[in-house]
Amino acid sequence: MTSRRSERRPGEFELISRYFSPLAKTRGALRLLDDVALFRVPARRELVVTADAIVEGVHFLRDDPPASIAQKALRVNLSDLAAKGARPAGYLVCLALPADRSARWLGEFAGGLARDQRRFAISLLGGDTSKTPGPLTIAIAALGTVQRGKLISRGGARAGDLVFVSGAIGDAGAGLEMLKSRGSGKGPLVRRYRLPTPRLSLGMKLVGIASAAIDVSDGLIADLGHVARVSGVHIAVAAAQVPLSHAFRKQFGTGERAVLRAATSGDDYEIAFTCPRSKAAKLASIARSSGIAVTEIGSVMKGSGVTLRGADGRALRLARAGYTHF
Amino acid sequence: MTSRRSERRPGEFELISRYFSPLAKTRGALRLLDDVALFRVPARRELVVTADAIVEGVHFLRDDPPASIAQKALRVNLSDLAAKGARPAGYLVCLALPADRSARWLGEFAGGLARDQRRFAISLLGGDTSKTPGPLTIAIAALGTVQRGKLISRGGARAGDLVFVSGAIGDAGAGLEMLKSRGSGKGPLVRRYRLPTPRLSLGMKLVGIASAAIDVSDGLIADLGHVARVSGVHIAVAAAQVPLSHAFRKQFGTGERAVLRAATSGDDYEIAFTCPRSKAAKLASIARSSGIAVTEIGSVMKGSGVTLRGADGRALRLARAGYTHF
Repeated sequence: MTSRRSERRPGEFELISRYFSPLAKTRGALRLLDDVALFRVPARRELVVTADAIVEGVHFLRDDPPASIAQKALRVNLSDLAAKGARPAGYLVCLALPADRSARWLGEFAGGLARDQRRFAISLLGGDTSKTPGPLTIAIAALGTVQRGKLISRGGARAGDLVFVSGAIGDAGAGLEMLKSRGSGKGPLVRRYRLPTPRLSLGMKLVGIASAAIDVSDGLIADLGHVARVSGVHIAVAAAQVPLSHAFRKQFGTGERAVLRAATSGDDYEIAFTCPRSKAAKLASIARSSGIAVTEIGSVMKGSGVTLRGADGRALRLARAGYTHF
Repeated sequence: MTSRRSERRPGEFELISRYFSPLAKTRGALRLLDDVALFRVPARRELVVTADAIVEGVHFLRDDPPASIAQKALRVNLSDLAAKGARPAGYLVCLALPADRSARWLGEFAGGLARDQRRFAISLLGGDTSKTPGPLTIAIAALGTVQRGKLISRGGARAGDLVFVSGAIGDAGAGLEMLKSRGSGKGPLVRRYRLPTPRLSLGMKLVGIASAAIDVSDGLIADLGHVARVSGVHIAVAAAQVPLSHAFRKQFGTGERAVLRAATSGDDYEIAFTCPRSKAAKLASIARSSGIAVTEIGSVMKGSGVTLRGADGRALRLARAGYTHF
């Protein structure tokens, strides 16, 4: 990887055969030798498909490691599948590549995809590469399957349900802020910003348990707002119950301002979901067996919108509901 | 559309609800209210999926009409499905949007998608929008279906097969050249560059007839080169038989230099395919019924690579095989 030749920017076909063809692990990918991929949906399941792009300077920073950029592009899509209870199968990637990326950079980028393919048991299915005079842009379409009729939608929350969230909230937003203010950084908060963890195993176990779910990308309050709107309900979140990581608490404390910061920053990629009270015991056992913290943070009521409530039960004033990438 | 308010740049959610939600015509799109779409593959068919992005300044020009930019992004993907014999069903779009696009521009862009959805009987299924500090970038993933096991691959050409191409070759490349040299332009060549016509109905009829197929995007010779490589054969194309449009002939004549130009420029989005001689009569009847010209241009032999042969049967020297967007 250090010879002059390997640092030369490869052409499109060389790039595909060297870096991407080895990622086409499934027969339907047709070894990336065709313009399309084939995919057969197993019996009693249906196809779930999602597509999200990430743009340099908007969703990631230029100096982020190439492997983590690739993994983030993939994982934000896998996170969408996770929140719907789907099992991922494969993905297509459209890569708009600035001229200044070296062969080494590309090798690390493909290496990140390779690691995540193994971790999440998925295969590259196709896509294309193109030059761009602008920022690196990676659009991924991810395919998965779910039991027929069992997709966990945003629209199933009902008054009386409880509200839960996986993992901890706020780390990624804090990590981004750190990177922006200092120009660089490391540590657990930055790692959480660069490399979200899609909650796939938990999501699949929530099928038949959760009444509605969403992955937290815009911010906990903003995303629960989508659930509230589509379900036609009000969601009340207790600020004191929002789970904060050790690293986050160490930096910002546990007061209401810290919770406000956590609940209105984005990029957490945890699953926020609602669940009927009748299924709470089953959920507790799922959470124990999945090894991922699942925290009850509020309840669903008649009405509309989302409130974040302080210790006295009053709604806290929100300057913004979340972070927008638009 | 001319009020000041409608010229204001809408936010992401407003943009989706105003311009894109009306395009989500199928139940599985979940009204774009969720992060994913559902898709059920009909019995005895399998899913075919493809993804291609187009970038401003690379695949289209900044001043191209917004509707035709949208249609081109969609059609280059539909063309991939067409060449494989697939029936298109829906698509996801990732739109990386510069800040300077007005509400009017967005309305025309969405209008282009709406027209093509009706024309090709497909629906928007999902995707996302993001801001970008760079050029407009549109990544589309298109879904379709094909009879199980009947996909027309690139790898099925056999020595003895005949080689065909739909429509006429070279118009789009000439149109692009005209736009680049004059800065603007109109007429049939420019129209063919801006708005390719995916040969979907022909492609579906080629299932069981064509032994291998590809859509011509890189250039006739370059794309037949892909077929030759994957099939492990040589393809000989007779220069005099390459179909040229009236508009192209008027500008460049019909000599070997004109054919060389046509066969090595890109963006035609015709189907180039091979067919066993035993099926040539059936093919002729399909061509008549489809209303699209299908021209025999050469034959498949043992060996490798592609040659373009002059009237004397000798291979013409090619400066390049095609146009690359990379």
